[in-house]
This record gives sequence, C-alpha cells and structure tokens, in this order.
Amino acid sequence: MTDQPNTPAPLKLPTLSTARIETLADGVFAIVMTLLVFDMRVPTQEQVDAVGLGQALLALTPNIISYVISFIILGVYWVGHHNQFFYIRRSDRTLLWINILYMMFVALVPFSTGLLSRYGSDRLSLIVYNLNLIAVGAVLYLHWAYATRDGHLLGHALDAKVDRLVRRRILLAPSLYFLAILVSFVSIAAADLLDVLIPILYVLPANFDSIFRGRQDR
Amino acid sequence: MTDQPNTPAPLKLPTLSTARIETLADGVFAIVMTLLVFDMRVPTQEQVDAVGLGQALLALTPNIISYVISFIILGVYWVGHHNQFFYIRRSDRTLLWINILYMMFVALVPFSTGLLSRYGSDRLSLIVYNLNLIAVGAVLYLHWAYATRDGHLLGHALDAKVDRLVRRRILLAPSLYFLAILVSFVSIAAADLLDVLIPILYVLPANFDSIFRGRQDR
Amino acid sequence: MTDQPNTPAPLKLPTLSTARIETLADGVFAIVMTLLVFDMRVPTQEQVDAVGLGQALLALTPNIISYVISFIILGVYWVGHHNQFFYIRRSDRTLLWINILYMMFVALVPFSTGLLSRYGSDRLSLIVYNLNLIAVGAVLYLHWAYATRDGHLLGHALDAKVDRLVRRRILLAPSLYFLAILVSFVSIAAADLLDVLIPILYVLPANFDSIFRGRQDR
Amino acid sequence: MTDQPNTPAPLKLPTLSTARIETLADGVFAIVMTLLVFDMRVPTQEQVDAVGLGQALLALTPNIISYVISFIILGVYWVGHHNQFFYIRRSDRTLLWINILYMMFVALVPFSTGLLSRYGSDRLSLIVYNLNLIAVGAVLYLHWAYATRDGHLLGHALDAKVDRLVRRRILLAPSLYFLAILVSFVSIAAADLLDVLIPILYVLPANFDSIFRGRQDR
Repeated sequence: MTDQPNTPAPLKLPTLSTARIETLADGVFAIVMTLLVFDMRVPTQEQVDAVGLGQALLALTPNIISYVISFIILGVYWVGHHNQFFYIRRSDRTLLWINILYMMFVALVPFSTGLLSRYGSDRLSLIVYNLNLIAVGAVLYLHWAYATRDGHLLGHALDAKVDRLVRRRILLAPSLYFLAILVSFVSIAAADLLDVLIPILYVLPANFDSIFRGRQDR
Repeated sequence: MTDQPNTPAPLKLPTLSTARIETLADGVFAIVMTLLVFDMRVPTQEQVDAVGLGQALLALTPNIISYVISFIILGVYWVGHHNQFFYIRRSDRTLLWINILYMMFVALVPFSTGLLSRYGSDRLSLIVYNLNLIAVGAVLYLHWAYATRDGHLLGHALDAKVDRLVRRRILLAPSLYFLAILVSFVSIAAADLLDVLIPILYVLPANFDSIFRGRQDR
Repeated sequence: MTDQPNTPAPLKLPTLSTARIETLADGVFAIVMTLLVFDMRVPTQEQVDAVGLGQALLALTPNIISYVISFIILGVYWVGHHNQFFYIRRSDRTLLWINILYMMFVALVPFSTGLLSRYGSDRLSLIVYNLNLIAVGAVLYLHWAYATRDGHLLGHALDAKVDRLVRRRILLAPSLYFLAILVSFVSIAAADLLDVLIPILYVLPANFDSIFRGRQDR
Repeated sequence: MTDQPNTPAPLKLPTLSTARIETLADGVFAIVMTLLVFDMRVPTQEQVDAVGLGQALLALTPNIISYVISFIILGVYWVGHHNQFFYIRRSDRTLLWINILYMMFVALVPFSTGLLSRYGSDRLSLIVYNLNLIAVGAVLYLHWAYATRDGHLLGHALDAKVDRLVRRRILLAPSLYFLAILVSFVSIAAADLLDVLIPILYVLPANFDSIFRGRQDR
C-alpha cells in the first residue's frame, strides 16, 4: 500500500483503468446473485406422487427465502461498489487486490444467508452470517479509504462532506452486524430481527439520499 | 422514487451511467439462459446398458423442451430490457434497485418453465409460471415508467407515440399471462396453449415493428 | 427479417449498437466453456481408499478429453462470432434473435461433446454431435448473411472477395459435419476421426489466413 | 504465428481490438473464482442432528481452504493478464487462441487446488497441481512473448527494461513450481510449503513494484 510515490517515475507502470475490475466484479455478482437458484429444483415425479405438487413446492420455501434475502444483500453491496466507481477512475495493484478480497467475501454471502435462514435459532449461524457481512463491509470501507487516500485514484474532486457521508454510510452496516452478534447473546430472536432490518435500511431511499434532499430544501 | 429534485443540488451525487447495470444484467441473463444446460447430463453407462442410448436420450426430452422455452422467454425479456436502454442513458439508485428486482424475477424463469413443462396438466404449476412472468413483465413496465417519468434518465427525446406503443407492448404480456390464469379455471389445456403462444407473439417481427412499417408505407 | 425498409421512417426505433449482444455472447461462451469443469470433482476419500489416487484421477480421463475438445470447438465458434462483429456495427431485433438462437445451440456443445467422447462408437451419438454443430454453423452463416444483406448493419465496407471467403469458411464446417454423418454409415471410426480433424482445420493458421498471405506475396 | 506480414495487404482482415478477449477472460475468471463456492453447501438437518452445527461447519474447512487458495492464485493470474492488456491494444487470431488456451488451463485451477488441499501428502497431487500452474504460467509467458514480438500488437512503446522485468516476473512462478516438483522427491512437506509461499510472493507489493520504487529513490 505504499507503492504510490508522489513524484512520477520514468519506469513506473502507467496507471490502469478500472474497466476490468468492474467487469470482473459484475461477473462475480451476477454468478453469486443467481447461485441459490441452482439449488431450486423442480420437484421430481416421486416427490409429487408422495406429497402432492403443492407440498413439494412449499418445501422449497426456505430456498426461496434465502434466495430473496441473499439477492437483496448482494444488491446492496453491488450498489455500494458501483457507486464508489463513480469517483474511482484509476486503479493500481493494491486496488485490484482489495477488489479480489471483496469478491472473495461477497461470494460467501449465499452460503451465510442460507445458513441463517435455515438455522436462524442457532447462535453459531448468526455469528457466521454477521462475521461474513462485517468482512464484506470492512473491505468495502478499505476500498474507499485506499482509493480516496490523497485522491490519487479519483476522477472527480471529492467534497469532504460527501466523503464523510460515504464513510459513515459504509461503516454503519458492519457496526450494526457487530451489534447483532452482541444482541444474540441476549436474545437470538432480536438479533435475527436486526439482521433482517439492516439491508432494508440500505434499500429504502430515505436514509442516504434524504440527507442531500434535506440540505437542498433549505 | 422521490429522490430526483428538479433543481440541482451542490452536494447531490452526480448521475451515474448505465454501463454497469447493463453488464450485470447481461451476466445474469447469460447464466440464467444456460442454467438448464447444467441439468442436461450425458447418460451414464448404467443407464445406457439398461435402456439403450436412444431411450436414455429420449428421457432428456422434457429437459430439452424446458431449455428451449426458457431460452426463448429469457430472450424476449433480454431484448425488452436491451431496447429500453437505447433510451435510458442515466441511472440512479432507484433504477439500480428496479433492475435488481427485475433480475430476481428473471432468474426464476428456468424454474417456472421447468415446472410447467413437467407438470403442465396441474393448475398450480400454471399459476406459479404465470405469476412469475406477470412479475417479470410488471417490473419491466415499472422500469420504463420510472425511467421515462419527466424524462430525467433519458438520453434521447422520446416521442409520445413511441412511449405509448412501448407501454402497450410491455403490458400486453402480463395481461395475457393473467388471462391464462383465468382460462386455467375453465380449461388447463387452453391455458397451456395460450402460454406457448405468448412468447411467439414477441419473437415474430410482425407485431411491434409492423406498426412502424405500416405507418411508413403511407 | 423484412423489417429494414430502405427509406428512413420518422417513428422507426433508431439502430441499436452491438455492445450488449457481444457482452451477452461473451458471458454465455464463458459459462459454456467452463461448464465441463463443474463435473470434474476432486476424488473422494472413499474413491482414493478403494482404488488409489492415481486410478481415481485416471477415471477422470473422459471428462478431461470432453473438456479439451469442447473448449476448442467453442473457441472456434467464439472466434468466428468475434470476427463477424469486426464488420457488424449495428443491430436490430432480427439480429438479436439470430444471436439468441446461436447461443441456444452453442450452449449444447458441452453436452454433445461429452456424449461423443463417451459413446463415440455409437452412431446415434455421432449423429447428435454432428447435428448440433451443423446447427451452430448454419446459424453462424445466417448471422453473417443477414447482417451483410444490403450492408445495412455493417460499419466497414465489405470487399466482395472477403465476403465470399468468409461465407466459404463458415459453410465448410457444417458441410464436413454433414459428411461425417454420411461417413458414419460406412465406418464409425472414420467419422470419429473426421470429427476430430474438423476443429483443427479452424485452429491452424494455415487455412484462412494463408489465402491472404499468398495473395499478398504475388 | 507467422500471419503478421510487415507490409499491409489490401485483402488482409483489419486488426481486431482486445475488448472481447478481456470480456471473455473476465467472465471465465469470475466463474472459475466462484466455482468452489458451488460446493459449499449449507449442512442438512440430518448432518446437524447427527454431529451438531459446529461440527458440520468444521467439516467444510477443506472446502474453505481450497476456496481461499484458489481465489488468490486466480487473482494473481487475473492481475497478470490484466496488466499485460495495459500494453496490448490490438489482437489477431493467434492471440485469441493463446487466450483460449490460457483460460483452458486457468479453469482447471480450482480442481488442482482442491486436489492439493485434500491430498497434500500425496506426491501425485503435488505434481498435478504444479504442472497445472506451470502450464498457466507458460501460456501467460507465451502471451506476452507473442504480443510484444516486433511490437505489432502493442499500444504503448515498451521500455526494454520493463519488458525484461515483466518476463522475469512471469517466468519466476513456473520455475518455482517446477522446483516444487523436484523438492517433492526429497520432502513432500517442503514442497507443500513452497507451493503455499509462491502466490504470496505475487500478492505482496514488495517484489515487482519495489524495483521501480528503489530506482526512483536514487
């Protein structure tokens, strides 16, 4: 992380664009978002003969719940990644590796979500799930912090207020996921509820955007 | 959906391009289109020894039918999505989320199609299939309605006639899929037939394009 | 295929770019090329205990052969598709659908290849394999024929000689695959050999490029 | 590899861009990086009933180790490929085929990694793993050697020193992997250790970048 000297060097490799990071990330997100559909199989004739089509479809309910939750959470992190690249317009080897780390944790989300939606009453699955999302959030923060450090990878000037808002917004999620782990030692049901509410915070337009709108109205 | 004020605000995040929505959507479509090929396995030696290669291949017929139907339906919705982005040239957080919702329903199409092609004589599978496609069509309509609302995300001027034609064309499919559900309470065979005919309407060049050609000939 | 009038119409949808066709096709090719790796599983402890690691790995030989052949054939058709888009710079709804049809047949190649490499001594698997590749080649020809028809989708002037060479080159493969079917009624081994040689023709630089080089030397 | 004459020919196909090679490669890398997640299944109720959730999750440890190692190694080769395309700005048929070969070996990495992390004490799995990575490295070298040969595919002038450094860096990995095979005949544990250390060399910023930084400081 110390390979960006302030004075240009004649032999230094020129700065890379971000196009391929974004293509790779979009590919990984596309696969990981649809991963849980691979498990959703049409009931076999034997299953249907045994319990009827209605029951056989009902048995897929946990799959569908995991799929929807996982899709939404991945949506939140895809949007977050996408928005950062509005500002980030250059890349270097460190940024490539932060992205690879980000995708490594992102690709585990369907597993963690499936675990939680099946074993939500078990504290261990809650801890695994929340640790996964803390890792995703922490790497997303690292991504922003590295890219904006002395602005060397930015394509637009970054307002200090926007920077603070972005940082606060990124850090909110891992803080809440950490809180959910703590809460789980008091009440697992309350921790589950908190875990359901966190992504909704990020989907609703109210939170982040309203700050700008509020400011504007004055 | 109310986060686009008419007056520009100094702190507001600048408008995003649509490049990554399109890359993500193309990735999801590529995976979902080929999803049913993952189930098409080369017959094992045991199967071939038991019934012969010919019979073992014939047993894959429902897989092949599901594959072809699902590919065509996904083709219809990929083309529809693709065409909208001819006009849509900017994005915002709401549009990102409408797209994520769209992909969430699109990724279920191979499942619904597989269900219908295997249990086409069961009303329940008909209802699941048609509800899935109604959801896809409704979100596609929402996508267009949101993007064209006061033109804030468009890159080209949109003729009011084109807008009307696009809306009518998008709404036609979910209306017909809703009709298929109603018909299924009278005759399941008729509903199945209707479900087969609907995508053909969208593949044939006659329907949408002929309006323009007809107009032009005068 | 008759929706391209020669005179521009005011209401006609503007010509679309080919960017998303190419992204979708690259996505489909990426998935389909790697599809056979999904089947290549690390031997389980039980398998290794029973026959030893060496034997367990040797048992994967047919998988590896299918994988390599399928990868090369898909490479040939990706290169062919890629090269056409050097000339094709605009798209319309018919071209989108020809592409969807192309991908539908392309995605079946791992299945057909797996079938042939496992049941190469059975005429039926030879016929399925060759019909699949005839379909791929025929749609690739259709793609070129449609796009170059009165040049409405081209971005570069197309020399009549290049056009003839491209057409001959595209048609060569399905002709040889058709020949392989005929040959299989005389000798299955000879048909298998022919099927192995055909892709090599397209990988070697000699064939297509030498025409240009030869011409140039004069 | 001899189809690039120095004098332009009127009939020669024009030089192709590298956009689609990069999209295809990013797609393949995205799939192959996430491939091992497909095997990481949420423990079933039966497994949890039998051994408890904690034990059932612990049983996934080899999967997680393979996943992390494979992701990092693929990251190294994605970065290497990505960096080459900073210089390479044109493509031809030979380059397309070198890329297809590269991806064919890259897609086997999750298999080889899974093999090594499960049977690391078996020399055979060490040999398979190291041969796979030697092949990947050799093709990456071929890619660079071909593209820089008389500069016909480069978009930037290439400093002879940078060229030497890039070549040395690419060749280092296959040399070390070859060394690991030799070492395995003395001590399998030492060869395993070497195999773990090699990718770390490429992730750490010290190695390649420090040459430039060092030079600059003087």
